[in-house]
Amino acid sequence: MSDRFSLHPQLLHGSPCLKNIITAVNVHHRLQNMRIGELLMAGQAPPVARAAVLKESTPLPDNLPQIRGYDFNQGLNHRALLQSFITTGFQASSFGLAVQEINKMIEKRLEPVQEECEDSDSRQSALGCTIFLGYTSNLISSGVRESIRYLTQHKMVDVIVTTAGGIEEDLIKCLAPTFLGEFSLKGKELRQQGINRIGNLLVPNENYCKFEDWLMPILDQMVLEQKTEGTHWTPSKMIHRLGKEINNPDSVYYWAYKNDIPVFSPALTDGSLGDMIYFHSYKNPGLVLDIVEDIRRLNSKAVFAKSTGMIILGGGLVKHHIANANLMRNGADFAVFVNTGQEFDGSDSGARPDEAISWGKIRMDASPVKVYADASLVFPLLVAETFAHNASRLIQEKKSD
Amino acid sequence: MSDRFSLHPQLLHGSPCLKNIITAVNVHHRLQNMRIGELLMAGQAPPVARAAVLKESTPLPDNLPQIRGYDFNQGLNHRALLQSFITTGFQASSFGLAVQEINKMIEKRLEPVQEECEDSDSRQSALGCTIFLGYTSNLISSGVRESIRYLTQHKMVDVIVTTAGGIEEDLIKCLAPTFLGEFSLKGKELRQQGINRIGNLLVPNENYCKFEDWLMPILDQMVLEQKTEGTHWTPSKMIHRLGKEINNPDSVYYWAYKNDIPVFSPALTDGSLGDMIYFHSYKNPGLVLDIVEDIRRLNSKAVFAKSTGMIILGGGLVKHHIANANLMRNGADFAVFVNTGQEFDGSDSGARPDEAISWGKIRMDASPVKVYADASLVFPLLVAETFAHNASRLIQEKKSD
Amino acid sequence: MSDRFSLHPQLLHGSPCLKNIITAVNVHHRLQNMRIGELLMAGQAPPVARAAVLKESTPLPDNLPQIRGYDFNQGLNHRALLQSFITTGFQASSFGLAVQEINKMIEKRLEPVQEECEDSDSRQSALGCTIFLGYTSNLISSGVRESIRYLTQHKMVDVIVTTAGGIEEDLIKCLAPTFLGEFSLKGKELRQQGINRIGNLLVPNENYCKFEDWLMPILDQMVLEQKTEGTHWTPSKMIHRLGKEINNPDSVYYWAYKNDIPVFSPALTDGSLGDMIYFHSYKNPGLVLDIVEDIRRLNSKAVFAKSTGMIILGGGLVKHHIANANLMRNGADFAVFVNTGQEFDGSDSGARPDEAISWGKIRMDASPVKVYADASLVFPLLVAETFAHNASRLIQEKKSD
Amino acid sequence: MSDRFSLHPQLLHGSPCLKNIITAVNVHHRLQNMRIGELLMAGQAPPVARAAVLKESTPLPDNLPQIRGYDFNQGLNHRALLQSFITTGFQASSFGLAVQEINKMIEKRLEPVQEECEDSDSRQSALGCTIFLGYTSNLISSGVRESIRYLTQHKMVDVIVTTAGGIEEDLIKCLAPTFLGEFSLKGKELRQQGINRIGNLLVPNENYCKFEDWLMPILDQMVLEQKTEGTHWTPSKMIHRLGKEINNPDSVYYWAYKNDIPVFSPALTDGSLGDMIYFHSYKNPGLVLDIVEDIRRLNSKAVFAKSTGMIILGGGLVKHHIANANLMRNGADFAVFVNTGQEFDGSDSGARPDEAISWGKIRMDASPVKVYADASLVFPLLVAETFAHNASRLIQEKKSD
Repeated sequence: MSDRFSLHPQLLHGSPCLKNIITAVNVHHRLQNMRIGELLMAGQAPPVARAAVLKESTPLPDNLPQIRGYDFNQGLNHRALLQSFITTGFQASSFGLAVQEINKMIEKRLEPVQEECEDSDSRQSALGCTIFLGYTSNLISSGVRESIRYLTQHKMVDVIVTTAGGIEEDLIKCLAPTFLGEFSLKGKELRQQGINRIGNLLVPNENYCKFEDWLMPILDQMVLEQKTEGTHWTPSKMIHRLGKEINNPDSVYYWAYKNDIPVFSPALTDGSLGDMIYFHSYKNPGLVLDIVEDIRRLNSKAVFAKSTGMIILGGGLVKHHIANANLMRNGADFAVFVNTGQEFDGSDSGARPDEAISWGKIRMDASPVKVYADASLVFPLLVAETFAHNASRLIQEKKSD
Repeated sequence: MSDRFSLHPQLLHGSPCLKNIITAVNVHHRLQNMRIGELLMAGQAPPVARAAVLKESTPLPDNLPQIRGYDFNQGLNHRALLQSFITTGFQASSFGLAVQEINKMIEKRLEPVQEECEDSDSRQSALGCTIFLGYTSNLISSGVRESIRYLTQHKMVDVIVTTAGGIEEDLIKCLAPTFLGEFSLKGKELRQQGINRIGNLLVPNENYCKFEDWLMPILDQMVLEQKTEGTHWTPSKMIHRLGKEINNPDSVYYWAYKNDIPVFSPALTDGSLGDMIYFHSYKNPGLVLDIVEDIRRLNSKAVFAKSTGMIILGGGLVKHHIANANLMRNGADFAVFVNTGQEFDGSDSGARPDEAISWGKIRMDASPVKVYADASLVFPLLVAETFAHNASRLIQEKKSD
Repeated sequence: MSDRFSLHPQLLHGSPCLKNIITAVNVHHRLQNMRIGELLMAGQAPPVARAAVLKESTPLPDNLPQIRGYDFNQGLNHRALLQSFITTGFQASSFGLAVQEINKMIEKRLEPVQEECEDSDSRQSALGCTIFLGYTSNLISSGVRESIRYLTQHKMVDVIVTTAGGIEEDLIKCLAPTFLGEFSLKGKELRQQGINRIGNLLVPNENYCKFEDWLMPILDQMVLEQKTEGTHWTPSKMIHRLGKEINNPDSVYYWAYKNDIPVFSPALTDGSLGDMIYFHSYKNPGLVLDIVEDIRRLNSKAVFAKSTGMIILGGGLVKHHIANANLMRNGADFAVFVNTGQEFDGSDSGARPDEAISWGKIRMDASPVKVYADASLVFPLLVAETFAHNASRLIQEKKSD
Repeated sequence: MSDRFSLHPQLLHGSPCLKNIITAVNVHHRLQNMRIGELLMAGQAPPVARAAVLKESTPLPDNLPQIRGYDFNQGLNHRALLQSFITTGFQASSFGLAVQEINKMIEKRLEPVQEECEDSDSRQSALGCTIFLGYTSNLISSGVRESIRYLTQHKMVDVIVTTAGGIEEDLIKCLAPTFLGEFSLKGKELRQQGINRIGNLLVPNENYCKFEDWLMPILDQMVLEQKTEGTHWTPSKMIHRLGKEINNPDSVYYWAYKNDIPVFSPALTDGSLGDMIYFHSYKNPGLVLDIVEDIRRLNSKAVFAKSTGMIILGGGLVKHHIANANLMRNGADFAVFVNTGQEFDGSDSGARPDEAISWGKIRMDASPVKVYADASLVFPLLVAETFAHNASRLIQEKKSD
């Protein structure tokens, strides 16, 4: 067999490269119906193939970065290591791009703006870039909470969107701790012991009891204010009040209250807060939480911003809600998504940022970045290389507000 | 080398099996620090190993199903093929278990119950099993909508939870169609053409314009009723009204209206509905959508049910909201989740049903099933093998209500 | 606030649609730096916006399918249900496209070809389309094995690539069954009982003992033939022999032997077969398994095919090996991948088919399909709608060979 | 309605917590068929519920870590940040556990051992812990290669398993660079330009041409040695030779050659190396690559180790091959997996380490760790906190060998 099927020596040892032959055959119109096998078997094939070989790789743009990871022979420098991520490829590169994208938000934010600021939701923002931060409740249950609290404390973000759990888990942590467990602990055994599992975290029932004791009088007070002062409660106003009441510098929402950062959570009843509101409604009925005023407030934050950046950890409501608000302004200027969702099931959670461009939720000329990873691994490092690295400038700016 | 390192012939050719030796060495306490290599090298090893070999596989329970897939030599019988899934393994088995779990809900639902039914949310349900159905908006955008519409039309489910998009996409489809596209279509090009992408689906801007034209007068009317009749609007009441107004048998919410199936969507402003409400609020302000009354209504559905089943497609709010309501009754009796989420990031979306058991959202003695798959592939087949298969009995039951 | 920020009534109630305004502002060059907020606030805005509104959705191509799922009101017809998948969206549509792609392979395969067939690997195939089937070992452990056995028995595929486990698990199942278990069974407890877990499947150690008893004499015989007859063993030749020896119509490899379908598994030592070969090598050394002859044989199957189709279940070696062989012919003409891998980590396993086009492993003008799902859910249904549906024509063709 | 359905005031305002009531009702046998709704509706319910409330959360073990993330108010200290990961939860905690697990391998490795070392595969290793490193080819294409090269250069690992691409991509990078691209670049356009895509990396065809020019004479030489000196080639021997020939300190396999670290890749023909071997076989036939000798060599590395650690990046062959070798010694003592695979499809790639315990591939008393993430994000950081952090001690040890 092999004597009849022999490659011409020049093909194999000369400069023409087999890879190029195969490519060339594929791309040249004259040859596209011929197969390598026929070429090689036919006596006249080599010259044809050789001619085809003239087609080489198109040179790549000069500025394309070469892939190269961190060289530990240079010693251990974490900052340099994280900077090498952008040329490491795959999600390390996505991390590097996310650092760049957030730093663009920060630079834009620090640009001087002349206009007056009357501190109203529907007035033009005084900031060069309004940053929307969204996250799912599990991140507050995790130690990512401390990164979020840092951003809120130092007014590094302007609008927050989260779920009910994203509110209550922060408040509960001011009352009692959450613990490290394992993903594989059995639900039945935990239930019998009154321990709730969130991934590999554990929260005793007792924590929710403490939360109930803390919350019930506040709900009474809210109903009273509604009845006597005509307070029109919305989820964001309730969260503002809860942040004031918790009065604890560990709390994200304490700082959101202090720094007047609105926190939106339209489905605020979907969690322990809802359980309490439900039971409370039998004792002291009448509380109204209106979501219409909040959507107006949230959208205005986007519409009247000079430019906007979205940083969204996780999927579901928090991702859609921020992006939808930015649709009202023809799309965000900057965007970073960190989540583990995949696009194949057509969910908004897993959609690539490019899907949001089709909707006008992100600008057509933006360079949004998605990092495919659990945010617990990525977000503290992202904060390190962006907000924390620029902390002195950002905190300066806030003080001179 | 090989002459010194030889296995004893009995080890290799006799009945003792190497797999058993290796296991035995591992499990016997006396031997646990010895390694196979030492055993084999040592002259005295074989007898020791042979003794250890007496430890064999523990017999498995008799009723454990053997793995065996469909035999196409029997001809092509789709029903038999789907029935073979339970012994096919992996997610095929999960599908088979999900069929069983939903059929348990159906049998329980059909059990005769004596109690009076006053058709009030806080009265004991007259059904043996109250079925909660949840799904994310993308499933309404997809052709899964027709399966959901079927269940609603024939009153096969009792409570629905979805997102804003899960409402509006159904209504919009009554006005103009959604098309099949590709996941890889470029966002910028689509945006320039006014086409929105949802995974591999395409929705022209024009559809949203038609929706706007349809919705605005209804919003005017809602504000009017609120002002003149004191209507206290909640998301579920608004959805009921929209179902009535759309008046189209293709619509899920038309049938939910007709059959008085409550539909909960606490973050109803998070979508095109919210956009419309936002713009409308500048023209005709004052609409209030209260989420407190709805949480009371939803929780009561769970609390006063005889037994409950949860069928939840996708993650995020819809999954948590139904499960949280079932916490109010010590957990659902039956549960089927279909989604692509993973537990490793600690999200509720990706959590296994066993996590919900730790919280008391599912009963400790339940046999919940999660099918890891895009619901578009799985749900129509699940409906086929459960609700549609039992259609005559279920529809009979509804009529005799 | 609201009196100054009011939308012009025409904007809200006339035909111009807000969605179009937002899009139009975004896409019109003159307006691209203006924001909706500014537009709305400015007195002269509405006419500008109205002008912009003239930009509408570009009409979609006429032949774009509308999304519509199965209507169970028509009764339960599984075939019609599966046919509705293509207009159901997401992975249901991918399933529908995969059915079409495989049916294209089948039609091509059935096209009459004149050329002589000398049944040699390096001669032009007599078939219009050579079908390569790849799968990971877990699918043989599962009931997908019966679908694969069907395809092999009826010579519906031409070349198989699998892993070591993909070979041995089929043979072992001829000796003793595999059982259905659960993903959450504890490894330690199973180990103590001598039970091995594969996902939610269970295989007792005893099965591997039976396999050892069966295999050892065959290895002796192989060494003998190598020494006495100069047999040059390769993995594919060994698999052919094992298929002959097992002599059981339940076995995939029995039929591959009978029908002379080559099965490639270059890392054949990576599994229980390797364990046995390892131990056997101390008793009866000298066996050589050469992988060079097999790569030549595999590549020739691709190079000399008229056209090729790839059906690949799972990732890793089986996916890469088939695709790489098709690179030798400028790419496969048809391709269907079914797996759960994701592209974000840069793995070949998770790569979309479009990555393979860049390499020339799939033709530039092909329409490859990836279905993102566990193959246990999808492959039996795919076989139903393709090979089994066309069984009479395909089996006819084989007989007239 | 609400007047009849009222919670007893003590229930709502006293110390009994609703969460505890619900739990208690669930777990107490007497009450398990009662529902909260019935309890609350019944006049006698509160005392019963109150009694039930005595059941509180079981106290958690004292040593359970509390969840707490990094506090950026302490300034930016990357080391402290990474150390805070273990109490951050989710995959950050998994990262922290993986650091601990690898550091256990390192400590064990550094333990003094008295025995003679004759540097033979089947002699007892002189190291306290033999470390097996496995990785898929994409990681060599990425900048993770530099971390792997560092480990190999300083003899920090003992046995390597990778795929064909994992070998050739390292060698090719010594000839020409790989570039950063994007995941969404179109395959057809890239193919027309002779550019191959690996995730978001780009490799020009030209690189493979250079590789061909470099490799062909080596293949000639290998055939010559086989014929004249009787060299029995195996994949590991070929890789050793390629490492010698590349003679470049950037190369992983140069250092594996220098430091005599065996590299196993049983399917070495599955890649560009196979393409070259295939074409070369027509010009200069006869090369034999035997995989039997390699499986004996690999297994012996596990069997004769004092203890073993597995570090496996990615899935497929590299994961299974290392684990299977460790089955030969009753399981590895330490294990860290980093990959994005999921267990639900029953693949070995996605299996949790606990599945490997059932097989005896990991010891029953081990504490294996899986980090669910793209290795490009995780592995350089893991190396930083383990091998690089302990570099002086590890390199010391190597020199005193």
